[in-house]
Amino acid sequence: MKKKIAVLPGDGIGREIAKGAVAVLKAVGERFGHEFEIEFADIGGAAIDQHHTPLPDETTEACKRSDAVLLGAVGGPKWDHLPSHIRPERGLLAIRKELQLFANLRPIITFESLVESSPLKREIIEDVDVMIVRELTGGLYFGKPSERRGEHNEVVIDTLHYTREEIERIVEKSFELAMVRNKKLTSVDKANVLESSRMWREIVQEKAKNYPEVQVEHMYVDAAAMKLIHQPKDFDVMVTENLFGDILSDEASMITGSLGLLPSASLRADGFGLFEPVHGSAPDIAGQDKANPMAMILSAAMMLKYSFNMHKEAEAIEQAINEVLNAGYRTPDIQNTGTHVVGTTKMIDLVVHR
Amino acid sequence: MKKKIAVLPGDGIGREIAKGAVAVLKAVGERFGHEFEIEFADIGGAAIDQHHTPLPDETTEACKRSDAVLLGAVGGPKWDHLPSHIRPERGLLAIRKELQLFANLRPIITFESLVESSPLKREIIEDVDVMIVRELTGGLYFGKPSERRGEHNEVVIDTLHYTREEIERIVEKSFELAMVRNKKLTSVDKANVLESSRMWREIVQEKAKNYPEVQVEHMYVDAAAMKLIHQPKDFDVMVTENLFGDILSDEASMITGSLGLLPSASLRADGFGLFEPVHGSAPDIAGQDKANPMAMILSAAMMLKYSFNMHKEAEAIEQAINEVLNAGYRTPDIQNTGTHVVGTTKMIDLVVHR
Ligand SMILES: CC(C)[C@H](C(=O)O)[C@@H](O)C(=O)O
Ligand SMILES: CC(C)[C@H](C(=O)O)[C@@H](O)C(=O)O
Repeated sequence: MKKKIAVLPGDGIGREIAKGAVAVLKAVGERFGHEFEIEFADIGGAAIDQHHTPLPDETTEACKRSDAVLLGAVGGPKWDHLPSHIRPERGLLAIRKELQLFANLRPIITFESLVESSPLKREIIEDVDVMIVRELTGGLYFGKPSERRGEHNEVVIDTLHYTREEIERIVEKSFELAMVRNKKLTSVDKANVLESSRMWREIVQEKAKNYPEVQVEHMYVDAAAMKLIHQPKDFDVMVTENLFGDILSDEASMITGSLGLLPSASLRADGFGLFEPVHGSAPDIAGQDKANPMAMILSAAMMLKYSFNMHKEAEAIEQAINEVLNAGYRTPDIQNTGTHVVGTTKMIDLVVHR
Repeated sequence: MKKKIAVLPGDGIGREIAKGAVAVLKAVGERFGHEFEIEFADIGGAAIDQHHTPLPDETTEACKRSDAVLLGAVGGPKWDHLPSHIRPERGLLAIRKELQLFANLRPIITFESLVESSPLKREIIEDVDVMIVRELTGGLYFGKPSERRGEHNEVVIDTLHYTREEIERIVEKSFELAMVRNKKLTSVDKANVLESSRMWREIVQEKAKNYPEVQVEHMYVDAAAMKLIHQPKDFDVMVTENLFGDILSDEASMITGSLGLLPSASLRADGFGLFEPVHGSAPDIAGQDKANPMAMILSAAMMLKYSFNMHKEAEAIEQAINEVLNAGYRTPDIQNTGTHVVGTTKMIDLVVHR
């Protein structure tokens, strides 16, 4: 198969890890007979420096003419003084909305070889395998009005806004994911307080009728924040609105102790998607060959699986990563007694080789 | 001193644990020469059964003529089928607003004797001592409009609403708390997305000028959710808006492994307050002499400290509880190998005796 991929390295360690994904894709292409055509474009701080905007039109165009997008990371202290509408993160929010990437998938998986790096006890996190589905283009993130009011600007308002259709499509997506996993769906809301949560809950109940095999459970967001810590194994697929998903998926990313290995996918209805690591741009270690490229490489694997339907290929990458970890190789962020510390480039080579 | 206290036992285990607080207050009164006059009133499900509303006017009146309020817990499956505006939780939301209890204080402390019950590793949670300050009467909880819209009700909206004054008073409260603690304040927001968070951040920066000794840090809510798990010791006082506080304080309540021991205070500007345990009404174990009365008793200690300025008396209670724990006594929820399991009544007796 022939596929076009837009690669947006972004800032900080983004450039180093993006190289890793590209190298691995090349190896996969050779082994499985695919052709991946790569086009690079700027986003975030890099784009602000070059084009005075965190998301230049050229970048949006490059994404639109591709079959999928790989993104490194955005942001850094260099751009922190800028007014909020031209900060690097704006590029991220804008591209999500622009490309209609409404379904953010965040798999949280415990790597047996990394269990000891977790702040949680082994018995709590062993065998955790949760898929968090976060709605990504609605809610408080984009609702209007979002403004100051009153004679002296003494009132401030943000709006949590959803349409029935927006909720329906993310809920359906989650049921479909539950069907190919362990058939359990936890819908997280705050229905004892929010009207939007009550509508959310109704829609989950309606859609549940079409998936009688899926066991559905409703949970308040505060209870979910607790349960992620003391019984994460109890979750299979968790679906929730944008801001709850932001908080819970970051919380969840801590429990397995392997933030440097967590990928994410942001999908459009037709399967087109943007794939990026969960971690940030880590400006403090940028350019020092210390970054962990694993999450970026696993994001490329998610791309193969979710956007190109290349399951064997994705598994080959996942297996290579497991082998490298089991052989004891670690970047500094996940090092441990008895392991063998290597740099970014070496880690990429090891994975490519396998 | 003479003080009037309204006691609202509420539902489930609320009645059993409220007895504990009353017994301990009686003992404290005798030892230190105070007179505590107790008035009981209904709230939550109990109030729905008796008066067809979760917060009867008599209860509000009883609270208003008291010097402080003690609350057990509300809710249970018996009332789950009711429409949301007459559910037990509504009583809680209504009383907070009615009595203007804008500052919710949630101390998160690791008990050395309970470290092993935590899902987190000892080195992460040893010596944790965080005070979470949650704004309790604004934000998404009470903002209007909160409604369905459109011809077919296909749009839903909730409003995150704050006034400058509401933010100022909670921020000031937090600085004052930081001053009598370790002089560090972490303000949690989502200023990269929300206008309300940007105003929040500005106000924290303004107020910081009046407290030059306090070290101030701003953190996004997603980052705070991560840091609570991997470096909780880094926090001293954390202040945040209503819904973020709901999520983060419940998350934090899990890390020390002692949910059954966590009290909370909800204060008005003049020091009047409502004090309640963080845990819920646990209908599954209600009436079986299995409930842990410690959080309720510690809530009474918070009342002595924050509303009545009785520091010695509060410490006496805290010390009694530590002694009972160190002697190895445990209710079933916190039992562990080598400890001595006792029921609610016995636990209360043990504390009263000390
Ligand atoms: C940078 C920020 C706006 C963004 C978000 O909140 O969505 C980030 O936290 C994320 O989760 O991708
Ligand atoms: C019962 C519910 C409305 C309440 C809240 O969200 O404030 C509870 O979770 C709490 O934290 O006291």
